[in-house]
Amino acid sequence: MSDDAEHHREKMRKRKDVQDREVASKTVEKGLLMVHTGPGKGKSTAAFGLALRMLGHGRRVVVVQFIKGAWQTGERDALARFDDRLAWHTMGEGFTWETQDRARDVAACEAAWAVARSALADPDVALVVLDELNIALRYDYLPLDRVLLDLASRPAMQHVVVTGRNARPELVEAADLVTEMALVKHHFKNGVKSQQGIEF
Amino acid sequence: MSDDAEHHREKMRKRKDVQDREVASKTVEKGLLMVHTGPGKGKSTAAFGLALRMLGHGRRVVVVQFIKGAWQTGERDALARFDDRLAWHTMGEGFTWETQDRARDVAACEAAWAVARSALADPDVALVVLDELNIALRYDYLPLDRVLLDLASRPAMQHVVVTGRNARPELVEAADLVTEMALVKHHFKNGVKSQQGIEF
Repeated sequence: MSDDAEHHREKMRKRKDVQDREVASKTVEKGLLMVHTGPGKGKSTAAFGLALRMLGHGRRVVVVQFIKGAWQTGERDALARFDDRLAWHTMGEGFTWETQDRARDVAACEAAWAVARSALADPDVALVVLDELNIALRYDYLPLDRVLLDLASRPAMQHVVVTGRNARPELVEAADLVTEMALVKHHFKNGVKSQQGIEF
Repeated sequence: MSDDAEHHREKMRKRKDVQDREVASKTVEKGLLMVHTGPGKGKSTAAFGLALRMLGHGRRVVVVQFIKGAWQTGERDALARFDDRLAWHTMGEGFTWETQDRARDVAACEAAWAVARSALADPDVALVVLDELNIALRYDYLPLDRVLLDLASRPAMQHVVVTGRNARPELVEAADLVTEMALVKHHFKNGVKSQQGIEF
């Protein structure tokens, strides 16, 4: 074996030791509260990817969409193949600038939260996706305290992922995992329109 | 209607005008080169979410995994339901610190790129997911120039998503959409281990 190859192997052996010790130090299993926020793309997409992963493991998933209505038709149609273990609730009627009616938005969010609450009370549900809940919280369409309390009271092993820009600091504080999707570069700037399979 | 409700409606009406003009100004349709990078979670998950969306629209997807082998079994099993329109190639044998053999890593990446190239030459493939390609490029397991050339030569309407930390600046430059997943908070810090449906 060449010196270079031996050097590489030695370096990687050390790295593996570090990695193995790191993995061994983690012993806790618990339901995670995850938040995908930030102005970049991928917040909902990654949440639906998690749903897919859970379904692939044969477990149950509930999706509640708080704001978007007509969007994400691709995922919804695709995930319909798992309809024995997936419940998908599109409760929102679109963005707030589509409805232009605050009272209607609040009512839609309240109805969505009632559905979410029943999922958050069911220990057979492995993952609850609360899509665009951050938008509902940001505009005070739902009382933050009640949402945080219901999240905290859920079954110990249940995972939850909350998506949407501008996550409230109290939610970030309560979360186990927070990822900020940052926009480095966006094709809309170059006049590219929304396309099937990408934005919807 | 109360003044508050009228104020909200007026504000949202203006917002919708801006939004509509924005949407109308986008007219270009093209295959996008997308990059998910950064230290946060969700890079591959969002890419598999895009795959799901595309499959939901009845279109063809090819996934090539450059580094990870044993991981993402959840998605792979779930997406197997679409195996008439999905080709999933797990070419990597694990992280570089697992194989500890640079020559073997390079050979695995070369074989993976050959598979990727044939997908990048097929206009019937709507989306190509090049999972963890950034890692292969970072360690010079593949020549960057050749990868960029093959990406640039693909069918005009084909979308590609490249994942992995530390995207090379030249790839970011060539991309239409770049999202950086930033880690705000991570449960591993609190001793939580990898769990089914979350990390794999």
